[in-house]
Amino acid sequence: MRIGACMEKGYVHVYTGNGKGKTTSSIGLMIRAIGAGKKVYFGQFMKEGEYSEIKIIKERFKEIKLEQYGQDGFIINRKANDKELLQVSNGFERAKEVLMSGEYDVVVLDEINVAHFLDLITDEDMFFLIDNKPKEVELILTGRYASKEVIERADLVSEIKEIKHYYNEGIAARTGFEL
Amino acid sequence: MRIGACMEKGYVHVYTGNGKGKTTSSIGLMIRAIGAGKKVYFGQFMKEGEYSEIKIIKERFKEIKLEQYGQDGFIINRKANDKELLQVSNGFERAKEVLMSGEYDVVVLDEINVAHFLDLITDEDMFFLIDNKPKEVELILTGRYASKEVIERADLVSEIKEIKHYYNEGIAARTGFEL
Repeated sequence: MRIGACMEKGYVHVYTGNGKGKTTSSIGLMIRAIGAGKKVYFGQFMKEGEYSEIKIIKERFKEIKLEQYGQDGFIINRKANDKELLQVSNGFERAKEVLMSGEYDVVVLDEINVAHFLDLITDEDMFFLIDNKPKEVELILTGRYASKEVIERADLVSEIKEIKHYYNEGIAARTGFEL
Repeated sequence: MRIGACMEKGYVHVYTGNGKGKTTSSIGLMIRAIGAGKKVYFGQFMKEGEYSEIKIIKERFKEIKLEQYGQDGFIINRKANDKELLQVSNGFERAKEVLMSGEYDVVVLDEINVAHFLDLITDEDMFFLIDNKPKEVELILTGRYASKEVIERADLVSEIKEIKHYYNEGIAARTGFEL
């Protein structure tokens, strides 16, 4: 927390569910926070590469510290390999360090719920972040499959439910809308 | 649609439900679209003023055309006055004009579902937008209370459900997170 900043209480948000809008919600929230002069950290688990939103964040938002912890491929439905385990484990250590430093007003950990669901992050580690974050920091956890215990510990939980999606009509992910 | 732009089919998205994340999702989606070089229009029904996200959009995203159609007060639970009716009605005409012009790749109409729910926009007008938009334009409709017929007509619908919210603990809206 910067010196002189107002010491408001920060909350824990969870954006979960199977619908479109979890990562975009957290991006919108970051933009709003930047508009209010807040310092923002955006860490992405199991994502890598220049998605359209990443490109624009790098280009226009120098005050968002963006780090991707790496991804070799989609891990859902198979066991992670050693490299993938290490990427998530190093990512978690980095995220914890950043959160605990209190240097950022808002810390977004994108797809962390999925890494937790896949047992790449232990319950103990996950709960540690929520239970021990600096009081003033706002912590945003995104991704499908947020666990019951994470939901219990959070202050705000939105479940984004897919009512319908054009994916189900065989439409592939499109640059500017999904990528 | 700009000359030379790739003529992809555009879809109709609806972000509805009682949870936090509808407007922020649409902002995140706009940022992603801008990152892919798309032209974006952002029209807000029944909102007015320099919210944190509005400030930053004006400051950093000259390629987002932003228009607020005006608001005197919150209309939920009371009848709209003549001025409010006129604001929504003029806003709708403007939104329709913009959508039909095909000048923008992405048209976001924030809180339009609420204006429709309150009968400030007729079913006929609402369905007209969805059924007659230029094929290539992506149309994003946000707000609680999206009607069954709107959901039926849309290609993608995410329902953002409030599982819990700190509002219910008596916390007021905070600059940078809700405002």
